[in-house]
Amino acid sequence: MSQQGVTPQSEDYSKWYTDVVLKSNLADYAPVRGCMIIKPYGYELWENIKAELDKRFKATGHQNAYFPLFIPMSFLQKEAEHVEGFSPELAVVTIGGGEKLEEPLVVRPTSETVIGHTFSQWVQSYRDLPLLINQWANVVRWEMRTRLFLRTTEFLWQEGHTAHETYEEAQEETLRMLEIYEDFAVNEAAIPVIKGRKSNQEKFAGADASYTIEGMMGNKWALQMGTSHNLGQNFARVFDIKYLDKKNEQQYCWTTSWGVSTRMVGAIIMAHGDDKGLRLPPRIAPIQVVLVPIYKNEEEKARVMHVVGRVADSLLAVRIRLHVDDREELTPGFKFNDWEMRGVPLRMEIGPKDVTNETIALARRDIPGKEGKQIVPQEGIIATVMRLLNEIQHGMLRQARTFRDANLHEVEDYEGLKRVADDGWALMWHCGTAECERRVQEETKASSRCFPLDLNKEEKPKDARCAVCGKPAQGKAYFARAY
Amino acid sequence: MSQQGVTPQSEDYSKWYTDVVLKSNLADYAPVRGCMIIKPYGYELWENIKAELDKRFKATGHQNAYFPLFIPMSFLQKEAEHVEGFSPELAVVTIGGGEKLEEPLVVRPTSETVIGHTFSQWVQSYRDLPLLINQWANVVRWEMRTRLFLRTTEFLWQEGHTAHETYEEAQEETLRMLEIYEDFAVNEAAIPVIKGRKSNQEKFAGADASYTIEGMMGNKWALQMGTSHNLGQNFARVFDIKYLDKKNEQQYCWTTSWGVSTRMVGAIIMAHGDDKGLRLPPRIAPIQVVLVPIYKNEEEKARVMHVVGRVADSLLAVRIRLHVDDREELTPGFKFNDWEMRGVPLRMEIGPKDVTNETIALARRDIPGKEGKQIVPQEGIIATVMRLLNEIQHGMLRQARTFRDANLHEVEDYEGLKRVADDGWALMWHCGTAECERRVQEETKASSRCFPLDLNKEEKPKDARCAVCGKPAQGKAYFARAY
Repeated sequence: MSQQGVTPQSEDYSKWYTDVVLKSNLADYAPVRGCMIIKPYGYELWENIKAELDKRFKATGHQNAYFPLFIPMSFLQKEAEHVEGFSPELAVVTIGGGEKLEEPLVVRPTSETVIGHTFSQWVQSYRDLPLLINQWANVVRWEMRTRLFLRTTEFLWQEGHTAHETYEEAQEETLRMLEIYEDFAVNEAAIPVIKGRKSNQEKFAGADASYTIEGMMGNKWALQMGTSHNLGQNFARVFDIKYLDKKNEQQYCWTTSWGVSTRMVGAIIMAHGDDKGLRLPPRIAPIQVVLVPIYKNEEEKARVMHVVGRVADSLLAVRIRLHVDDREELTPGFKFNDWEMRGVPLRMEIGPKDVTNETIALARRDIPGKEGKQIVPQEGIIATVMRLLNEIQHGMLRQARTFRDANLHEVEDYEGLKRVADDGWALMWHCGTAECERRVQEETKASSRCFPLDLNKEEKPKDARCAVCGKPAQGKAYFARAY
Repeated sequence: MSQQGVTPQSEDYSKWYTDVVLKSNLADYAPVRGCMIIKPYGYELWENIKAELDKRFKATGHQNAYFPLFIPMSFLQKEAEHVEGFSPELAVVTIGGGEKLEEPLVVRPTSETVIGHTFSQWVQSYRDLPLLINQWANVVRWEMRTRLFLRTTEFLWQEGHTAHETYEEAQEETLRMLEIYEDFAVNEAAIPVIKGRKSNQEKFAGADASYTIEGMMGNKWALQMGTSHNLGQNFARVFDIKYLDKKNEQQYCWTTSWGVSTRMVGAIIMAHGDDKGLRLPPRIAPIQVVLVPIYKNEEEKARVMHVVGRVADSLLAVRIRLHVDDREELTPGFKFNDWEMRGVPLRMEIGPKDVTNETIALARRDIPGKEGKQIVPQEGIIATVMRLLNEIQHGMLRQARTFRDANLHEVEDYEGLKRVADDGWALMWHCGTAECERRVQEETKASSRCFPLDLNKEEKPKDARCAVCGKPAQGKAYFARAY
């Protein structure tokens, strides 16, 4: 373990990010190009993310299943847009059991094809619908530039796949899952997000419409944190997913897919981290409270550890995720820095004075310096800790929202976009065309993020025109630098 | 859903097995050679297995992490025995992102190599030891003959990997995890197992010693349900996993690995299933109680459903996994068969008479016919159900143990082995040599299962000789037909 700090954000945000991932023990580079090793601390964070999402999927009637890692190449080729979108990113198995395979197998980059094939066998009648399935799995995309958690050759994710009787039901499902993602992001990860529709250029390969939740990172760049797709009948037609309706007629299903990945960990790091390292929202932090005993000699140690044990037991008994740092060879100062780096929301210190005064010293990770510190009575410590964890959770969300809102700018024209593109998000009327998006990307490096749902509810003025090219606007869209 | 039954075990055990897997909706064949699709019911069973194992791993100080799917071919080649054992079974990625890879990547068949490489970076000093890591993952082995859950090209599993200061600690860990597997098998899966050491021929490629839990299936064949390996310093030397000891001297670590896979589902099917289908132990059953409402008309339905709702709510409130089968288009008789096929431990029926009499009709899956049925008062139903689920759990274990014990035979000579090999397990003095095992396998189809730990504790008589070849015996070993 290193006691050195991280590169300041202001100096090099990208280096800051990598420093935090490595020094907070979330992940490590793997000996395979573009892959990562998720270390125990990072994996526990992912387990907490998984548990919260899985609970929401099951509460809305979805069931988990598991589909094969390998997909016959011919499956991918059935949907023209899909194969075009994914073929540059494929890892291909050509040898199995020592022999060249007749048909190469693709390591799944996503599973619409093999699940579409399976759904065609599972669905016969309207009674089998809606079919609501989710899979927790690893996927592989051969990415050129990789970055821990944000874009890795292999990553972990969940992919939901559903089939419905009507377009309306599929659309309802698509938006329901987007809302579940928003609910998770806001209430668990403490990250405010903008829900929106992707432009045609940015949508999923093979979808009719793609929706996204976009979060603002600490450098004001956007990060796509989850997507939900209305696949129309595209995959149903190609994979023959049909049902007998109530009039006994064959109909194609309407399908959806939606996913959140280990990229969410990257979002949490960048939405909340600071120059001292990680800051984790209490609701998903692997360790919510770290307790550091302080003593100078054996006599003090005995008195202190007695109280430490009692306090720890009482908090663990109510399922607060507490860790006692009783490492002998390290100073309290070292430990403080270490747990700040690892983003533990609340630190408790108990020393000889606290034993005498029946107190505990607390330090909040979300409020730096003296302001975040207080001495509280040992009595009622459970209620105190619960209240503070709650306050920290809400405080982090408030802080992220204040920061985000201060960096959203509505712009009237291309000049306005150029002014803010480097230092915030620009909201503007947008034609939605490929030409315009390409031009903006080339000239400002900002990309089209989404047409926010909340801001495009009302009918647009008839004369609404694209701020960049002046053609009729599709709606208001956010543009920003993005990962 | 099909109302047809399964092939009787006595007619064709292998067909019975496949019928049960498919008709109970546990899994399906995948469109990729040797792979399977785990359906929601099967996956929920696997989730319950995972949760129980994971709890035990964490309680003994292990942490989960995640390592890459792909392993450079050169890593596998470092350990001679390891590569020899696994190379015939590898799936190899040769193309990534449209280009031929310089070094082919193996899809992990197991992760000793890549984790060994990582451990060499994580371990510096004795303070970093023991290092206790587990991974939940998919692995791929190109198997020639596959069978749903028992042997599939891709399967899901956990693989534990640990590093220690001494041989003794590694050996202690190896046996501790074997005991955890035994504890799970006996107390959750209701399958009595024999813990033993594998012969040299049967041990893991690269291990010093391999231990196994072996269960007896319904056709008296053996199934290896989990293994735990003492890897000695083999992988530590090859991957340079070294630590500075207290005297400041470099030492190689001692490592272990241990795993349980989706094969466990196959064990549960075969240890408990009967000609009506699956029988699931209550502690891991996705559905512990199915409640079937019975009525003939709308008036009866209203009265019955009122009570059904009340009873269901009270059981769900205490976390009993209950499902109300309120499908309209199916008869109660169809539903009874369906849930028997799917192995639900306890069935409840509530009809108009039960409403009047304030009773509930119960049917146990573990006791066929009238004997397993009873009418109980609605009052106290929570306690009644909890008691019965507990009785079923223990009853299933007892039944499996009685069956197993009746089919274990101690034999004195090769003739004795030949007599029992087709219809039970033979325990005999065994030399442990490859020649002898090969001969037995060829002539009787029985393979060496293990040297049971409990039966090899005492020092063996000096003149103990192999029942087959007459050479000095290593110990007593079980031989049996096996999957």
